[in-house]
Amino acid sequence: MAEGAAPPSLKDLTIDNITENVHAINSQTPNLRLKFILERTVVHLHDLARETRLTTDEWMTAILFLTQVGQICSDVRQEFILLSDVLGLSLLVDSIDHPKPKGSTEGTVLGPFHTHEAQHESLGGTISHDPEGEKLLVLCTVKDVDGNPIPGAMIDVWETDSKGFYDVQYADRNGPDGRAVLTSDDKGDFWFKAIVPVPYPIPHDGPVGKLLMHLKRHPYRPSHMHFMFKKDGFDPLITALYLRNDPYESTDAVFGVKNSLLVDIQRVQDPEMANTYGVELGSALMTYDFVLVTDKAAADLRREKAEEAMRKIGFKYRFIDDLPVPDVD
Amino acid sequence: MAEGAAPPSLKDLTIDNITENVHAINSQTPNLRLKFILERTVVHLHDLARETRLTTDEWMTAILFLTQVGQICSDVRQEFILLSDVLGLSLLVDSIDHPKPKGSTEGTVLGPFHTHEAQHESLGGTISHDPEGEKLLVLCTVKDVDGNPIPGAMIDVWETDSKGFYDVQYADRNGPDGRAVLTSDDKGDFWFKAIVPVPYPIPHDGPVGKLLMHLKRHPYRPSHMHFMFKKDGFDPLITALYLRNDPYESTDAVFGVKNSLLVDIQRVQDPEMANTYGVELGSALMTYDFVLVTDKAAADLRREKAEEAMRKIGFKYRFIDDLPVPDVD
Repeated sequence: MAEGAAPPSLKDLTIDNITENVHAINSQTPNLRLKFILERTVVHLHDLARETRLTTDEWMTAILFLTQVGQICSDVRQEFILLSDVLGLSLLVDSIDHPKPKGSTEGTVLGPFHTHEAQHESLGGTISHDPEGEKLLVLCTVKDVDGNPIPGAMIDVWETDSKGFYDVQYADRNGPDGRAVLTSDDKGDFWFKAIVPVPYPIPHDGPVGKLLMHLKRHPYRPSHMHFMFKKDGFDPLITALYLRNDPYESTDAVFGVKNSLLVDIQRVQDPEMANTYGVELGSALMTYDFVLVTDKAAADLRREKAEEAMRKIGFKYRFIDDLPVPDVD
Repeated sequence: MAEGAAPPSLKDLTIDNITENVHAINSQTPNLRLKFILERTVVHLHDLARETRLTTDEWMTAILFLTQVGQICSDVRQEFILLSDVLGLSLLVDSIDHPKPKGSTEGTVLGPFHTHEAQHESLGGTISHDPEGEKLLVLCTVKDVDGNPIPGAMIDVWETDSKGFYDVQYADRNGPDGRAVLTSDDKGDFWFKAIVPVPYPIPHDGPVGKLLMHLKRHPYRPSHMHFMFKKDGFDPLITALYLRNDPYESTDAVFGVKNSLLVDIQRVQDPEMANTYGVELGSALMTYDFVLVTDKAAADLRREKAEEAMRKIGFKYRFIDDLPVPDVD
């Protein structure tokens, strides 16, 4: 429907004409991006029903499932993110929105356990206080693609305790643990004390867990530690490091593992290093050099890939705020 | 992935290969219908993200929207059905699952206000006790496509009060009102006393209402009364009667209006009729002759249309319990 045209007459809608009519009435919005996303949402939802010949009973099962997903959400549980994760949507969206040029660190799923309550920790500080965990020294750098250090980057780190639970999964917790925000120093270095990550199941006592069970899928994630980087002038990086040879390395329930993000747990063998960081000789050590992409480089690559995708799909498009909308003139 | 094959290695998933890998891991389920529906769901969700170049912020907006939709649901409020209704999905699913041969009564949306607590009412009984409503005598028949009366059909009827609210929308209600279950008599007749339906907005104080506002859509439904028929041997009929010339006749927020379901409010002009049904001369009257389809006729038509759709889409399919699944041999 051309913009500004009279609204359509919404009567006698059928399997064959309902999609275009829903789009016509939704086209009254001046928000072109909302209009585009809604149009594609309605097309795909309707095609899904038409292609599968979805029954009223199946539709009602889906309605009740989505209701349960929403109802189990709380301040400390986000079951819709979990659903998005196990369907591969979260990883896909991250890949689209944060494309990585060669030589930069790959991104992965945020997951449902990032919070905004982590406290700032000094370099060298301890972020996990679980006495059952195996102590781990983490030594990292953060640089740009040309190898220049990035000082003053804010780094959000979070991991589970030794039992595989994040702090927010305990009803009786006293405050944040297993998470912190750090700031890289003048040389782009940052380091902290944590515990060796362990594999754990995503929360599977809710509707998403039931879905996985019906699909004969296990709910486990391989051992990993989350990292999120923010620094003015750079594209935010949401990523994680995964322990190599974890039993779930190739079957992560949320599809997050990338070979470039696999790390080996090393041992502190240099007495000077042990002394410098205040850890015991032989204790566990994890190192990684992160590489961030500038805002500009990410935006250019995002746009290039968007244009390529639009051409491939055959959409007539234009860009608003660097995001595609249909070109209807 | 062939059934029974080893699970795929889920590493280094990209924009281009994630969809097939999510499908591969989901393919472990022995439930072929679930597998088919999930496969199409994942394809459409992923295509939606790829086609719109969905951003992390937009994805998070959608996650929070769906969470709110779920959280506002209660025993007496179903916001996901409302969302499905305003996106045209509900009408589409009803059309697919309950196809109507020529000469039978068309179906329409169930809506979120059907309950299972309506009391059985004798023929001639009063289903709405709102003193502000304009009294309405409803005289109907229910027959098969050959014109034979259907005795003993269970008929669920529900409508709002004169203010446009269903009973369940009142927090302080004492019990059901504006709804009842009736049984047709030996001649397939059923009749009851209600009130003249009024237009009303669907609940728009929640997330679905906000969405409509962003889309510049009004939340109104034209005046109507819901009917649901159940009778062994016949396909369930979910339908409604709409008052002709209602201001929202052509812009129903949930796309339910069909010309064949429009009725005129008449007046009781025959003193004998007034006497028979115990109503005043000149009072409002609504009549309709409903026509049900047999289970067999509905199933045949459903299958015929499913086969036609599969051929059109180009899917290789077979049927299990009369529902299509991919034919992968």
